[in-house]
Amino acid sequence: MGALEKLLNKSDKGNSLFEAEIRNIKIPVCKQFLKGGKISPVDFKPSKDSVSTKDSTKVFASFPNLRETASKVMEGVRGGKTPKLKGKRVAVLFSGGPAAGGHNVVAGLFDMLAASKCTLLGVKAGPKGLINGDLFEINGEDIKRIKNTGGFDYLGSDRTKIKTDEQFAAVKKTCVDNKLDALVVVGGDDSNTNAAVLAEYLYIGVKPDGSGVQVIGVPKTIDGDLQIGKYLPISFGFDTATKIFAEMVGNILQDTPSSRKYWHFIKLMGRAASHVALEVALQTKPAVALISEEVAEKKMALGDIVKQIGETVITRAQNKMNYGVVVVPEGLIEFIPEMNLLIHELNHIVARHEKETADFDLAKKIDFVRSKLSEEHSSLFASLPHYIQEMLLFDRDSHGNLQVSQIPTEKLLIDMVKEYVKEISPETKFSTLNHFFGYEGRCGAPSLFDAAYCYNLGLTAGAAIVNGMTGYIVAFTELEKGGEILAVPLVGLLNIEMRHGKEEMVIEKALVKTDSPAFMYFAVNRARWGEKDLFTSPGPRQLWGPVSNQMPMTVALNQGYGKLGFKI
Amino acid sequence: MGALEKLLNKSDKGNSLFEAEIRNIKIPVCKQFLKGGKISPVDFKPSKDSVSTKDSTKVFASFPNLRETASKVMEGVRGGKTPKLKGKRVAVLFSGGPAAGGHNVVAGLFDMLAASKCTLLGVKAGPKGLINGDLFEINGEDIKRIKNTGGFDYLGSDRTKIKTDEQFAAVKKTCVDNKLDALVVVGGDDSNTNAAVLAEYLYIGVKPDGSGVQVIGVPKTIDGDLQIGKYLPISFGFDTATKIFAEMVGNILQDTPSSRKYWHFIKLMGRAASHVALEVALQTKPAVALISEEVAEKKMALGDIVKQIGETVITRAQNKMNYGVVVVPEGLIEFIPEMNLLIHELNHIVARHEKETADFDLAKKIDFVRSKLSEEHSSLFASLPHYIQEMLLFDRDSHGNLQVSQIPTEKLLIDMVKEYVKEISPETKFSTLNHFFGYEGRCGAPSLFDAAYCYNLGLTAGAAIVNGMTGYIVAFTELEKGGEILAVPLVGLLNIEMRHGKEEMVIEKALVKTDSPAFMYFAVNRARWGEKDLFTSPGPRQLWGPVSNQMPMTVALNQGYGKLGFKI
Repeated sequence: MGALEKLLNKSDKGNSLFEAEIRNIKIPVCKQFLKGGKISPVDFKPSKDSVSTKDSTKVFASFPNLRETASKVMEGVRGGKTPKLKGKRVAVLFSGGPAAGGHNVVAGLFDMLAASKCTLLGVKAGPKGLINGDLFEINGEDIKRIKNTGGFDYLGSDRTKIKTDEQFAAVKKTCVDNKLDALVVVGGDDSNTNAAVLAEYLYIGVKPDGSGVQVIGVPKTIDGDLQIGKYLPISFGFDTATKIFAEMVGNILQDTPSSRKYWHFIKLMGRAASHVALEVALQTKPAVALISEEVAEKKMALGDIVKQIGETVITRAQNKMNYGVVVVPEGLIEFIPEMNLLIHELNHIVARHEKETADFDLAKKIDFVRSKLSEEHSSLFASLPHYIQEMLLFDRDSHGNLQVSQIPTEKLLIDMVKEYVKEISPETKFSTLNHFFGYEGRCGAPSLFDAAYCYNLGLTAGAAIVNGMTGYIVAFTELEKGGEILAVPLVGLLNIEMRHGKEEMVIEKALVKTDSPAFMYFAVNRARWGEKDLFTSPGPRQLWGPVSNQMPMTVALNQGYGKLGFKI
Repeated sequence: MGALEKLLNKSDKGNSLFEAEIRNIKIPVCKQFLKGGKISPVDFKPSKDSVSTKDSTKVFASFPNLRETASKVMEGVRGGKTPKLKGKRVAVLFSGGPAAGGHNVVAGLFDMLAASKCTLLGVKAGPKGLINGDLFEINGEDIKRIKNTGGFDYLGSDRTKIKTDEQFAAVKKTCVDNKLDALVVVGGDDSNTNAAVLAEYLYIGVKPDGSGVQVIGVPKTIDGDLQIGKYLPISFGFDTATKIFAEMVGNILQDTPSSRKYWHFIKLMGRAASHVALEVALQTKPAVALISEEVAEKKMALGDIVKQIGETVITRAQNKMNYGVVVVPEGLIEFIPEMNLLIHELNHIVARHEKETADFDLAKKIDFVRSKLSEEHSSLFASLPHYIQEMLLFDRDSHGNLQVSQIPTEKLLIDMVKEYVKEISPETKFSTLNHFFGYEGRCGAPSLFDAAYCYNLGLTAGAAIVNGMTGYIVAFTELEKGGEILAVPLVGLLNIEMRHGKEEMVIEKALVKTDSPAFMYFAVNRARWGEKDLFTSPGPRQLWGPVSNQMPMTVALNQGYGKLGFKI
């Protein structure tokens, strides 16, 4: 075998040149965590800030143990004064979809716990692994191997929600069997809601001495919909995902005036909120970017959106730009008020007439449903392309609900804009391509921002544990000037929402605010971008060199920072 | 307006932090081109190597002017001895789809021509712009702005093939009107074939003194199907495109054991040849990567491919890996012998019975066609999913030919593998997602390899011109030890092929050779990758830092280099 073949074989299993080198990148540590150059836990003291649930009576009734600490935001300060727990056993799990930087949370947690002679265990495959007691001890060799790498594969993850009595009992058993003193839940809004419930449930009476198991949450999600104003600038993974998507969108934008041929409609993963779409729009400046929250707020009809895009297509064509990019957030459809109403009405009609229409073919079913729909929705339904009508009638889950996320919004818009352009300006050439970026963005190697942010979140979680805290989500702010360490009480974030017709206590999903600096900057500038084709191509995220130090633009704008560079 | 808003506005129109910084990257120059630290043309002398057409009688008959120089490969050596042309006017055009590094070809060409006081003109929008006489003078400010950036937008491009007498006459007029002395065609195999024809046509009698216009080709295409063994290791753009695709595939691979849920079928752009799929497979080591040329050589049936993937799915499931990645080359369908025959037979049947079946609906048309197909192809046709049958019958171009590239091969394979797995191993979970990567890879900022390779190709083209050469494609080899400068005679690369039933002289598309070192390395190792999940995540291409210096793996293997780092 030749030298090159040997070299290529050496790269097997996560050892490409890139992966080998990123493990050596030195991650900056917030100086509060350093004592004589070594990692050391901070103390936590109450800050001047508080959070408060809107439904305190109901929420506090469910959290008798945690209500005392449910409002004060805790601040991490140079430590050493408060006595710290030592020799404890802590478990960490990933919950939900992967996000870049999860491995660095584990690394930070490990290093901080090691400083207090604690043991870190990994829970395999998420909450299900916690229920099943599938744990193993994490060692320093593993940490070296996973540091700065993408993916959740070291532990695995799943989407089990711990809610039945049996599941809670099983979790308690796992804690007892593994002599756990604390649990760290790395997850999104739902998983952190679950962490709050676990913190309450495990508060006392778990261990032989009658004490409880601490629970600390870490904010993860590429969607960016877990953020709490100035207390939590962003969830981890958002920066890497949006940098990956922005490179792809920027590359395609660069292609448009090169081949002068296509309009690309690009849907971006991000669930309901449009944080991802907004961030990518700021980074790339496309001709059109839709923001679901604005659509809902302005009560825009589907036809309004189609018209807006169609007019941009026609105007640009008149200016010899028969090309462009439209950025579409994944959750758009549900934010169009009339579509939302139509879907609700359809849900009822389909359910009520299920038997009667069971043998109908598509055409007959469409006629039937149209005859039952209100006049307004009947014509909206009729305006939709056939494959969308078919999806609306047939693609339903086991509860009979439409799988809205399955609707190919980008194709729907293409077809409807085509109709519009053909009618208003038949001479305008309008060739299209569509894309969906999502899975590509979840498991890339973390950007330097996510790598550093996650490692410091892990350190914070470790410090909260050795300070004996429970029921907090860790956070890290003041990202442009060294970082400030926070722990925000989870119970103070809970509010009552109706879900599937039932009241549930949940952490509210953070949507894009149309009065936020990030949205307002976008709103002021977008017309100019489209008219003059001012797009940018932000390129692949760099782990070395002069442009590696960048935080998300939406974060910098919304936090009121003066620059994009982060400093930890 | 705040400081940050001002900063964001400053990034308008290709001025993101990344784009601003890449313009400052210093590109290495082959030392043969340097004289006292300044760029200076090489001399060209005949090397010991030759190329020869298989159809010399016919080809030479068509190229009476160029036949003399049609075989000797020319080598660039430290210059200064041969007198050089000065003060000439040279035009450059892009032809066909964009590829990363085109702007650096222009930059290299500009810098080399400047050294001989020549003027460089840009042809807008490709061959069509040449016909229409749409030219402008390129200046140093433009070069600073476009250096190291992605896209073909500085000039634009198109796919016009210059073939009619009127078109040739129009090109000659453009040359006369613009007082051109030379023309550089940056394009793929077809464009370089066209360059050969233009070189012959413009050989004499264009300028007032009766002399001709020189034509030089530059090898561009992300598909990698324009390569000539040791004389031309690769076309430019291939490295950047495959690095972009490999990052995405690597990210998705990293996602598979994290979420443990999906098989991803990923189709990659690359036209007929599988160079792109092979390169990405070497970089990422997925469970399955299909190589069209192997399928054709082994005369594999569609069912064989489905079985191969299905068995991998089942085996991995038995080893608790209910996930994986299948890399699918764009051109696969045409390389499956039975599919190729079926398509041919269908083309005949559809054409012959066009009127008769005009009013048939899909079901009736399928029945009719099946009754006319040979028994073997009838059952193959019946085995295909309905939407593929529909495409095979209806999606035809104006000549009645099937648009094979439109067939969603990745979805076809998913559906057929699903059937297979359900039948053989009904208990095996098999959830799938599909992706197509293509346009994302054409206009990214060039990798350092493409940036350097292209700049030196541009220098070579400039040097060939001031040496008075015509009818050559420039090349650059010995990439691991400083580079060797070559010019390969285009006419020597022409062979006769049947295209649309007519003999045409063309540069043969380079396919993946199954006896090449790159394919053999892949063939030896792929089973291991799939069995043990040995994938790698090569990460985003880096323009700075320890892993920025990498050439394509297929190139390093096929050229017999001992390492991946390039040295120019």
